[in-house]
Amino acid sequence: MGWGDLGAFGEPSKETPNLDQMAAQGMLFLDFYTASPLCSPSRAALLTGRLPVRNGFYTTNGHARNAYTPQDIVGGIPDSELLLPELLKKAGYTNKIIGKWHLGHQPQFHPLRHGFDEWFGSPNCHFGPYDSRERPNIPLYRDWDMVGRYYEDFKIDLKTGEANLTQLYLQEALDFISKQQASQQPFFLYWAIDATHAPVYASKQFLGTSQRGLYGDAVREIDDSVGKMLRHLQQLGISEDTFVFFTSDNGAALISAPKQGGSNGPFLCGKQTTFEGGMREPAIAWWPGHIPAGGVSLPGAALSSPAGTAGTGELLPGGFSSHFPQVQVSVSALPSRPIFYYRGNELMAARAGLYKAHYWTWSNSWEEHSKGIDFCPGQSVAGVTTHTQEEHTHLPLLFHLGRDPGEKYPL
Amino acid sequence: MGWGDLGAFGEPSKETPNLDQMAAQGMLFLDFYTASPLCSPSRAALLTGRLPVRNGFYTTNGHARNAYTPQDIVGGIPDSELLLPELLKKAGYTNKIIGKWHLGHQPQFHPLRHGFDEWFGSPNCHFGPYDSRERPNIPLYRDWDMVGRYYEDFKIDLKTGEANLTQLYLQEALDFISKQQASQQPFFLYWAIDATHAPVYASKQFLGTSQRGLYGDAVREIDDSVGKMLRHLQQLGISEDTFVFFTSDNGAALISAPKQGGSNGPFLCGKQTTFEGGMREPAIAWWPGHIPAGGVSLPGAALSSPAGTAGTGELLPGGFSSHFPQVQVSVSALPSRPIFYYRGNELMAARAGLYKAHYWTWSNSWEEHSKGIDFCPGQSVAGVTTHTQEEHTHLPLLFHLGRDPGEKYPL
Repeated sequence: MGWGDLGAFGEPSKETPNLDQMAAQGMLFLDFYTASPLCSPSRAALLTGRLPVRNGFYTTNGHARNAYTPQDIVGGIPDSELLLPELLKKAGYTNKIIGKWHLGHQPQFHPLRHGFDEWFGSPNCHFGPYDSRERPNIPLYRDWDMVGRYYEDFKIDLKTGEANLTQLYLQEALDFISKQQASQQPFFLYWAIDATHAPVYASKQFLGTSQRGLYGDAVREIDDSVGKMLRHLQQLGISEDTFVFFTSDNGAALISAPKQGGSNGPFLCGKQTTFEGGMREPAIAWWPGHIPAGGVSLPGAALSSPAGTAGTGELLPGGFSSHFPQVQVSVSALPSRPIFYYRGNELMAARAGLYKAHYWTWSNSWEEHSKGIDFCPGQSVAGVTTHTQEEHTHLPLLFHLGRDPGEKYPL
Repeated sequence: MGWGDLGAFGEPSKETPNLDQMAAQGMLFLDFYTASPLCSPSRAALLTGRLPVRNGFYTTNGHARNAYTPQDIVGGIPDSELLLPELLKKAGYTNKIIGKWHLGHQPQFHPLRHGFDEWFGSPNCHFGPYDSRERPNIPLYRDWDMVGRYYEDFKIDLKTGEANLTQLYLQEALDFISKQQASQQPFFLYWAIDATHAPVYASKQFLGTSQRGLYGDAVREIDDSVGKMLRHLQQLGISEDTFVFFTSDNGAALISAPKQGGSNGPFLCGKQTTFEGGMREPAIAWWPGHIPAGGVSLPGAALSSPAGTAGTGELLPGGFSSHFPQVQVSVSALPSRPIFYYRGNELMAARAGLYKAHYWTWSNSWEEHSKGIDFCPGQSVAGVTTHTQEEHTHLPLLFHLGRDPGEKYPL
């Protein structure tokens, strides 16, 4: 999901009333970044609080290549990494992951070995169907047990885009929240849905409801689900004890737009790249009674992201937790610490204040481009969206993100 | 000013708290269009309620050329045209224009001959300085009398961008509103400021206040001024009798970006073109007690613009009027009538519902382009942002603006 996919962030169809309301009741982050323009390392960074080059979740098999499936190359998240749920467990939290794990699919990388108490979801994306002995379909788990496979037991109709997975994940979340509230146990819920990841899907009740096509239907279903969860917290009387954060793991995948990909608003390029479109994310924090209602009450201030204050701080769609005393939301004019933009283990760019320096520029290769793969469709900035890897370490390409958020005019 | 220049429309620095609040208290229009991608014919269309090809404010001296200075070619607005202030005068309104008229600078085209009772402003843009006998600087008027000239009596410092004109226009507006309220006379105020038109300017107190540079400073000053006017209406107790509409006359001029030009958000190209970036405008209606507070209360609905229901309906920054009973704001899923996109007298494109058909494509000529003039900087859509005029009348290029608001993927 990209920066430009929510009404509160300027999506022209304005079809996300629940997330927009969440923003109006909470805080909108305008400078929030993932640690990687790709889902798997980004999620590893979120859960460890460390950049992929530090937590080991990156690959070196090609220069400036993203670790697309580091699970296949590095295996999964090392035991030596401390994950957020491991820390929270020490503080008495019950931790649940719903949806995509993506930090390794072999037994030793199982989320219940890394701090989570419960899991309903899959170790990988819902790619497929493969339907073969050599390459079986991706499985889904309930805790330790495999409960079925995508396309077989958990249907995704690639023709119509229909799948009820988000509804299953929503119900699972509501039930978990209810259970925790009934037992008065603090909890951390990591709601890592993936309906907007190609192949995009939505439940029958949402199909055709968006002006934006199937991708918009999926966004609407996520929006509706978040609204239901927030109302559930309120109805249970625990909204003032629950910090809720919404964001995405990378910018919209423009290679699959418009049918299977979203919008990065005014920003350059998308997923896979270290331009703003690849790593600047929609982000909303909500905590009634603690975070003042925003929307119109945050006038004129660009907010620093947790990424700016805590080093990484990426959170994926629906990080929920109650009794979360260490959360600190800072309001300041500019991020106080640099933002680093990596592809694989190459530092492609860095941001300090409003300035961003590109040490390497690259969109995607001519070879891919000739096959119709384009990370920057309709966008072409000479010397910037290059199709060969261009080094600028001696004289970095400098941009001012205030005057030129679209990275079109090198200084 | 462009669609992407306001926080409420997704500008990433979110520096327009007053306009954002106006939107939250009123209604945001997501499908609002000007009648021309250029200021002069757009303003003529606003005041006459008719497209330039109908009101005569267009030129035919080059195919698909915009009437950049139709004043020089056609002279000005014909006497046969009925302007909004002429209609309002019959209903007892006092009408004032503050700022740029642009509908003809010869005596017979004076705004006080076309329905306005008062004027403080100039007949043309603040281009210059010319400082010569052959080409004197553009004059400013108070009613019938010239009161000085730009650069001479009304300073604009091109080096620093400093000019206090918006403050003069603001004070003039506040005084007019006070006077009308004191005399209990209904009024129409057309506040047609031009600080965001190159050469961009801002008052000393706003210089350097924006992350976006001088252009952002100018936007902030306009935003601040609108806030002061709305609060003035509230303090005078006439806000519930006053309909206020904010919009722009054309998309941001990307040829002068980033220093002197703004943002059209996710839309293609800008001023001068018939792509969405040239003609889709930020628009906000405000009328406490009559228009329900919007912001989060307009969830998921794309609003039809007055352009969709009334044929033209463009309004420029700060169309104010009290006792405006004929205003009808319609809320519906889609514009109910077509939108027409003209350059000069050529129908370049038309929109019906979410579909937009291009009959001609053109950005700007290769000749201009080779001189660095670019109406679509950083954007390049093959066969769409063409540098030669391409005819598609037999097989129009079709876009779906819901799935593809950026006009990147012809169907």
